[in-house]
Amino acid sequence: MTASPFDHPFLSGLVGDDEIAPYFSAEADLRGMLSFEAALAKAEADHAVIPAEAARQIAAACTGFSPDLASLRAATARDGVVVPDFIKQLRAAVGEEAAKNLHLGATSQDVIDTSLMIRLKAVVFLFAGRLSAVIAGLDGLDGRFGGNRLMGHTRMQAAIPITVADRLAAWRAPLTTYRDRLTEQNFPVQFGGAAGTLDKLGPQATAIRASLAQELGLTDMSQWQSTRLVIADISGLFASISGSLGKIGQDIALLAQVGREIEISGGGTSSAMAHKQNPVAAEVLVSLARFNATALSGIHQSLVHEQERSGAAWTLEWLLLPQMAMATAASLRLAKELVGNIRRLGIA
Amino acid sequence: MTASPFDHPFLSGLVGDDEIAPYFSAEADLRGMLSFEAALAKAEADHAVIPAEAARQIAAACTGFSPDLASLRAATARDGVVVPDFIKQLRAAVGEEAAKNLHLGATSQDVIDTSLMIRLKAVVFLFAGRLSAVIAGLDGLDGRFGGNRLMGHTRMQAAIPITVADRLAAWRAPLTTYRDRLTEQNFPVQFGGAAGTLDKLGPQATAIRASLAQELGLTDMSQWQSTRLVIADISGLFASISGSLGKIGQDIALLAQVGREIEISGGGTSSAMAHKQNPVAAEVLVSLARFNATALSGIHQSLVHEQERSGAAWTLEWLLLPQMAMATAASLRLAKELVGNIRRLGIA
Amino acid sequence: MTASPFDHPFLSGLVGDDEIAPYFSAEADLRGMLSFEAALAKAEADHAVIPAEAARQIAAACTGFSPDLASLRAATARDGVVVPDFIKQLRAAVGEEAAKNLHLGATSQDVIDTSLMIRLKAVVFLFAGRLSAVIAGLDGLDGRFGGNRLMGHTRMQAAIPITVADRLAAWRAPLTTYRDRLTEQNFPVQFGGAAGTLDKLGPQATAIRASLAQELGLTDMSQWQSTRLVIADISGLFASISGSLGKIGQDIALLAQVGREIEISGGGTSSAMAHKQNPVAAEVLVSLARFNATALSGIHQSLVHEQERSGAAWTLEWLLLPQMAMATAASLRLAKELVGNIRRLGIA
Amino acid sequence: MTASPFDHPFLSGLVGDDEIAPYFSAEADLRGMLSFEAALAKAEADHAVIPAEAARQIAAACTGFSPDLASLRAATARDGVVVPDFIKQLRAAVGEEAAKNLHLGATSQDVIDTSLMIRLKAVVFLFAGRLSAVIAGLDGLDGRFGGNRLMGHTRMQAAIPITVADRLAAWRAPLTTYRDRLTEQNFPVQFGGAAGTLDKLGPQATAIRASLAQELGLTDMSQWQSTRLVIADISGLFASISGSLGKIGQDIALLAQVGREIEISGGGTSSAMAHKQNPVAAEVLVSLARFNATALSGIHQSLVHEQERSGAAWTLEWLLLPQMAMATAASLRLAKELVGNIRRLGIA
Repeated sequence: MTASPFDHPFLSGLVGDDEIAPYFSAEADLRGMLSFEAALAKAEADHAVIPAEAARQIAAACTGFSPDLASLRAATARDGVVVPDFIKQLRAAVGEEAAKNLHLGATSQDVIDTSLMIRLKAVVFLFAGRLSAVIAGLDGLDGRFGGNRLMGHTRMQAAIPITVADRLAAWRAPLTTYRDRLTEQNFPVQFGGAAGTLDKLGPQATAIRASLAQELGLTDMSQWQSTRLVIADISGLFASISGSLGKIGQDIALLAQVGREIEISGGGTSSAMAHKQNPVAAEVLVSLARFNATALSGIHQSLVHEQERSGAAWTLEWLLLPQMAMATAASLRLAKELVGNIRRLGIA
Repeated sequence: MTASPFDHPFLSGLVGDDEIAPYFSAEADLRGMLSFEAALAKAEADHAVIPAEAARQIAAACTGFSPDLASLRAATARDGVVVPDFIKQLRAAVGEEAAKNLHLGATSQDVIDTSLMIRLKAVVFLFAGRLSAVIAGLDGLDGRFGGNRLMGHTRMQAAIPITVADRLAAWRAPLTTYRDRLTEQNFPVQFGGAAGTLDKLGPQATAIRASLAQELGLTDMSQWQSTRLVIADISGLFASISGSLGKIGQDIALLAQVGREIEISGGGTSSAMAHKQNPVAAEVLVSLARFNATALSGIHQSLVHEQERSGAAWTLEWLLLPQMAMATAASLRLAKELVGNIRRLGIA
Repeated sequence: MTASPFDHPFLSGLVGDDEIAPYFSAEADLRGMLSFEAALAKAEADHAVIPAEAARQIAAACTGFSPDLASLRAATARDGVVVPDFIKQLRAAVGEEAAKNLHLGATSQDVIDTSLMIRLKAVVFLFAGRLSAVIAGLDGLDGRFGGNRLMGHTRMQAAIPITVADRLAAWRAPLTTYRDRLTEQNFPVQFGGAAGTLDKLGPQATAIRASLAQELGLTDMSQWQSTRLVIADISGLFASISGSLGKIGQDIALLAQVGREIEISGGGTSSAMAHKQNPVAAEVLVSLARFNATALSGIHQSLVHEQERSGAAWTLEWLLLPQMAMATAASLRLAKELVGNIRRLGIA
Repeated sequence: MTASPFDHPFLSGLVGDDEIAPYFSAEADLRGMLSFEAALAKAEADHAVIPAEAARQIAAACTGFSPDLASLRAATARDGVVVPDFIKQLRAAVGEEAAKNLHLGATSQDVIDTSLMIRLKAVVFLFAGRLSAVIAGLDGLDGRFGGNRLMGHTRMQAAIPITVADRLAAWRAPLTTYRDRLTEQNFPVQFGGAAGTLDKLGPQATAIRASLAQELGLTDMSQWQSTRLVIADISGLFASISGSLGKIGQDIALLAQVGREIEISGGGTSSAMAHKQNPVAAEVLVSLARFNATALSGIHQSLVHEQERSGAAWTLEWLLLPQMAMATAASLRLAKELVGNIRRLGIA
């Protein structure tokens, strides 16, 4: 039941992330969906599309609602998406009168994509902080060892001497770019209704969408249910981050192999060789980089998202994006740890 | 904690698989590892490398052993692999005398790769049965509707009329090939010791490996710790299976769009449109095919497995292969279900 | 000698591009390299690092220089890169006195990456114009058919009626974003010397780099020889463009299959069926989208670019990026043609 | 006009292959297509479907036929495939009477896929010979240096000493498997007619197909125009070969970095550093492995080949498979060269 190491009882120690994983739990997803429904009801009440009292009842019901997971699972098997059964259960909790005002004008994709955006926004905020910590770690190394000599290598051969500061500059440069991009990343609400036209909300549709976005702290934007650039952008950023951290990992593993120019603490032990100190984090940074580079291809395949909503392309995103986020989280965690474990770099 | 839909409380209803998932649980992995250690002790005792009594004690300890998962998780974070701590815990369970005979001459990769092979062998056996069921389902459709007319389509355009039997033949052809391949697939024991040379076992090394393989029901083969063709082969077969099932899914989704030539029961419902019957399984077959096609790339990247053991390449396999197996399992499950739900194909 | 359809005598009619292909010819690459060497000499003369007369001689030699291609090919086989032999030949052309001032402080990667940036900048400018043409074509369709009815489809099933304008809005939205991004795309000079430290140019190094960038119309930026985010960014943008155009292609192919809601001229003929009109351009848009989605994965693998220069990662870029540009070019060409061939969309 | 390094005037020195490239030229493709048409006419005459005299005229015309490439290119742009115009031109060459007997019952895919199989069969035969040469080279190293000591490395760290023979055994093992697989690889004729049913040939259809296969030296097999396992199998084998050779390349590059345990001749020179000897071939083996690992993903995407013929999926194969063959060819060429350049391995 744990085919993915990110979710695995013991492998998650290596590639999981205790801080980020909860954002991709079913519970967090459902909380995001409940936020959407409550905010939608409030926005529709604010624009007098549903009674204010119904919005209040919906908000109250959403606060404490805990769905029947077994029913959700069975329904997802049938419907391809959790929302119809989720709404059915929530309607029962909301009570008959308000129930017909719940989810008004919305479709499954609105709920699920918006829940994803709410959570990714929080995740990306944490990533920016982690990037700052990695950068600070590199700055620290620069302060202590920047003037040390390091043999520059090109094409896997000793080239000419450089300084540790030179190598650190190459490691740091993309990270500062990523931090800016994470900060500027756009997290739009998804709200389009059955076929993207908000057909049930009439002339107030876009005003309701704007209120909904504001309520949820997301950007207001036209529905993007079949134009998945938002997903490709975030995935590309994740893969770029883990790719650049993978370069750092590869460099450190190569330094550790020769050993003369680096001292690291905290390496892994071996079941067969007591004397070894393995640069585990350095290697896993490479694994995670290659995982994200692999997965990104599938995200781009899903840009070929036919018609108003492709179940095939959308489900493919689900199979890839959360794990790309987890791989990026683990990369950032391991990079910080690895940089912190460097006791010496270069030769004084 | 459920970044992967295969492991997810409700999404696993759609893309998970209750029969196959347990083979990729931590518990099953640990059971496979215990089988390896018990069988290794037995093989080493049979060749008089360790006392028979030690092998008995080890076997007894392995039977009931339940490791401390929190400790395994913490150790995996440090060591990059679960085995050192697992062996340490198991040694404590085995008792002082026999403990030094446990895991003798083996390395982490021996334990983990062999546990994987034990489980994949069982999984592949089940897949062969499922393929037979899908083929039987197609044969059933052929019996009922084979003579019906179907418009043949090339380049997304009506071409010339064909029969339902013609279309079914194209669907079935690769499946029978896969069934043969699954049956012939090789599942080798992995046993090489610290650097693949079985350095601690002297002249009896290969005889012990042969006994170990026989004990576990696996093929005897030289260590393959850095030559990962076995992994690439199985992954390629999985991706081919889900790819061919994806073609069936795509075809059925296209038939369902026009609607005239197919009747399906059991389609999914919509949260916004009560009248719709979505061909959910057909679409998800496409998603799973594209997921495996994506992941296969990473498996092939990991063929560049440096030196005697690459932590980077090996960890990358862990991130991909179990989920490829799960995607294949779900494909086979959904294909059988979808074929079974076809009420009519073609026009009489 | 034409393994790639982009370069192929007849397949290039389908997936090639007469306007963009020349930018990826050996001739254009060499011209870019000559521009680099002439501009470098000028910048170094301007900062009094080499004599002004040498810079003039170098510029003059570069203008008319035509290298011995057979020699370049043989040398590339040996050196992994064309530059050492190219410089050797160019030194002979420049004449003894100025020759020692040629390529001063530069390395192969400076020449090749900068030549690539010069050409990509021109290519991206043309892409922006093509995007505008596609957008104008969509606007034209909107003007003529925007009010027509179209059946909205979700999960490959008829959902609710939408208008042609709704569908066109989904097609157009990402294209306008891409046009902005193409315009804002950064094309930096690459100049780092042997190991990225401009070790031979002393305190004037960064001033020379700034002059060089200005001379070539590129952005001044620290060397990025081992931090390949620039390459990943451009590739990601290319894959996004072709991905969104692939969605349009897929939608049109699906419309054409049913036929009622679209009329297209200019479809392909069949060798077996005279009556068919194949939506060739629509299908090929899907192929090109999937090609770029595939190739992008390799570009991201090459972010794991070890040490100061990785021959392995760099060569991998060469195998992928030019063809990604060509795929994008063909996508834009075909999208414009396809949109222009739509005679009717939706039902009045 | 040379976006692909495999086709490039000077980069082909590095990654091209003078022996294999001609099989992927337009000329070779057209010759394969002419072989198909001549053999088809002969098979149809043998089964009395067309006059023997017509078959003779067709064979004679095919022998000397040289099509108008500009016309083929323009037609491919329109039709998505070269065959309709090719047949039109060939009909003119054949003369009026026999012309109507040309291409009888065949479709574009029959011609193109069969031409590909004819050429891949020859290519794969050459690959098997090359693999033998690489294996012989490794055997030679084993004979000279097998007893030398080498430091075994796991997780990028010195582990325990092994022998050169141990390392060579890991390099060689998959190569012998590949040689067997290349020899056993199936190259089937493709013959199905417009929609795969050989609808125009009546009860003699399968007998004609068998004769056609025999005439061309290919395997007789039911049409596989929408079931592309043959393509996935060959591509997977290519990627496996280059993957295993990439592992050898990576190992050698790592040995060369430290330098103590290997001596290689024939390294590349540098434009900036006269003292360097770059292990160019070793690095490029890694690039080619990662290229094929990347491309394989696209081939597997194209298994989702909808209906009786997907222009989208088929064109995607064209964009990937020939270059995968070229990458494999270059891998084998470079591996042989690199192994031959090893002057010493390990420490006596």
